[in-house]
Amino acid sequence: MKPSRIVTLLTDFGTRDPFVGVMKGVILGVAADLRVVDLTHEIEPQAVADAAFWLGQSYGWFPAGTVHVAVVDPGVGSERAPLAVHAHGHYFVGPDNGIFELVSRRTRDIEVRELKPDRLNLTVPSHTFHGRDVFSPFGAALAAGVLSFGDVGPLRKLTRTELLKEPMSSSTGVEGAVVVVDHFGNLITNVPAVALAERGRSKVSLCGKTLKIARIYSEVPPGVLAGIVGSSGTLEIFTRNGSAAAALGAKRGTPLRVHA
Amino acid sequence: MKPSRIVTLLTDFGTRDPFVGVMKGVILGVAADLRVVDLTHEIEPQAVADAAFWLGQSYGWFPAGTVHVAVVDPGVGSERAPLAVHAHGHYFVGPDNGIFELVSRRTRDIEVRELKPDRLNLTVPSHTFHGRDVFSPFGAALAAGVLSFGDVGPLRKLTRTELLKEPMSSSTGVEGAVVVVDHFGNLITNVPAVALAERGRSKVSLCGKTLKIARIYSEVPPGVLAGIVGSSGTLEIFTRNGSAAAALGAKRGTPLRVHA
Amino acid sequence: MKPSRIVTLLTDFGTRDPFVGVMKGVILGVAADLRVVDLTHEIEPQAVADAAFWLGQSYGWFPAGTVHVAVVDPGVGSERAPLAVHAHGHYFVGPDNGIFELVSRRTRDIEVRELKPDRLNLTVPSHTFHGRDVFSPFGAALAAGVLSFGDVGPLRKLTRTELLKEPMSSSTGVEGAVVVVDHFGNLITNVPAVALAERGRSKVSLCGKTLKIARIYSEVPPGVLAGIVGSSGTLEIFTRNGSAAAALGAKRGTPLRVHA
Repeated sequence: MKPSRIVTLLTDFGTRDPFVGVMKGVILGVAADLRVVDLTHEIEPQAVADAAFWLGQSYGWFPAGTVHVAVVDPGVGSERAPLAVHAHGHYFVGPDNGIFELVSRRTRDIEVRELKPDRLNLTVPSHTFHGRDVFSPFGAALAAGVLSFGDVGPLRKLTRTELLKEPMSSSTGVEGAVVVVDHFGNLITNVPAVALAERGRSKVSLCGKTLKIARIYSEVPPGVLAGIVGSSGTLEIFTRNGSAAAALGAKRGTPLRVHA
Repeated sequence: MKPSRIVTLLTDFGTRDPFVGVMKGVILGVAADLRVVDLTHEIEPQAVADAAFWLGQSYGWFPAGTVHVAVVDPGVGSERAPLAVHAHGHYFVGPDNGIFELVSRRTRDIEVRELKPDRLNLTVPSHTFHGRDVFSPFGAALAAGVLSFGDVGPLRKLTRTELLKEPMSSSTGVEGAVVVVDHFGNLITNVPAVALAERGRSKVSLCGKTLKIARIYSEVPPGVLAGIVGSSGTLEIFTRNGSAAAALGAKRGTPLRVHA
Repeated sequence: MKPSRIVTLLTDFGTRDPFVGVMKGVILGVAADLRVVDLTHEIEPQAVADAAFWLGQSYGWFPAGTVHVAVVDPGVGSERAPLAVHAHGHYFVGPDNGIFELVSRRTRDIEVRELKPDRLNLTVPSHTFHGRDVFSPFGAALAAGVLSFGDVGPLRKLTRTELLKEPMSSSTGVEGAVVVVDHFGNLITNVPAVALAERGRSKVSLCGKTLKIARIYSEVPPGVLAGIVGSSGTLEIFTRNGSAAAALGAKRGTPLRVHA
């Protein structure tokens, strides 16, 4: 897999302080022609599940060989291992805390290695900012081809986590949940489009309400709640020109049921 | 017009979720050497008038041949047409909903075409995220020279809109309005600098107050409201080290009068 | 010093309006291959001390020859001089108002010049947006090698400022202060790591509380306040999974004492 010389960044560092800018300085110091793209830096502090969800949704839109550096890392400075992952033709760099849960699901063609700072002759990292001191240098080295994936450190396994539940299907419907609330207040669920196509499933019930599942936004009058297959390829709950999360009082984990 | 290989992005997608990052992945997938610049992603959700204003203010600062992708699109998935516009030596890509109102004003040298997804062999787009599925691929194709402007689809006309009013001038003054409130709380108006130069017009009245029009910020004591010709080349209302919008209770559409 | 062709930007312009995007348009208009990196645009409006702190913390992570454009500029349009500074193998561009205080501290190998717009044949700048009209063109010209440092304008001296206090050390401890509150609510202080290593200094007192100084985050139970050497190389006060600033009611300038 030839690196694409593109590095994406996904963190909970925010954009108020120049932490992300400093990571980019480190990356451009490895090779000045690398392209760096922000996925987001506004993951809620230490919300590893949100990070895992958005990383899983985003990486596939980039050219093969892209390196995705994901740092939401409540355990920085403790014993959790720093990792590089090779899967789906992409590279991933970050802590072993579940952030790669969606990336690693539904594939057996995955290779995981522990980052060994001596492979890059890194000085002892700070105890608090591995985004700058470990993950950025390794991400940049992979993206620039300075280091091959096999040379970052020894093979190991991902620690098993279950941050993002999968939906349960039965003959009468699908039991799912809200997995993330987006910027517009839309509720993104874990129910895939394919599960809607079966057995005339055309309604979704949550928070004591039963909603129609629409095909396009404009089919639904303003102010009315409804479901739709969103851009992630899963069921989303929305209301035109408003926040479905606020209207329903729903949030991550809110259960729902798709039925005929 | 040779493309500058630069793509700007202006949306209401926010920066909390990785929607914009994904658009950049799509763009770099078309040509890895394109330069992508964020204008803003914090247009108030679905505020097409704000988007039209800022797009009109911003494009001219980029090299000729830049492609400006502007997506504030309440009608996504409905019948509004996806467009490319060629005007002022720049390219513009986005929905036909008024977002190009300022770009298209005061020029006859403008060409408008409807984007036809089959021209790029695009798969059927999602119903909810044309920023990713239609506008980014076409913007990138134009910027990279993969597709010429004439090949994106058939000629058509912009739908007429009047989101941003023009000021009215008379012998005794100019009737204008606040068109946008900026990050500092400054009130940007639609009254051009040239309208101030005439007939000793040196005062502006709004919200029951009459203010002096100053030449530089530091001419006005802290805490005092005043007008000034802002960086957009139009009259702005400001107060040093504070928010004029808050002090006056003014917002988009607030009427004002410039006079001697 | 060969320019790295990288330009960083640090401002208080926010990301809501496209002011920063426009600066990037101007920069890419000088040379389309320049790399532009955001440090932050969310400095509190006109908080020059915050800007000086973060600029001082950040520049060193970029390759030598990088140009750092820093614009927090309450005096725009008044008599404060526009400057370029050459120090530590980097270039800095911005107003003479203390924003370079940390950059210029502890070095004698520093050269300061006043920017003369005629050296770039710039048209008369606006009175309100020197970030676009003066600092971006000069920053880009330096980064692209269009103009050498010696040609930007005449030599002069930085105006002396004391925005960021230095700590005072005595035989019984170190008197310091909070210099900035970061995105997580951590309190970054002006007490360097080296001052902690002496004389068994292992505690910090502030806001009527005495806290232990830990080596790593995970050494401290959730909800407990403690000190740590942060990624800036100075003492920080934190609480795991929470905001130390909120817990202590501390802010910029809050005094503290490190002792045995």
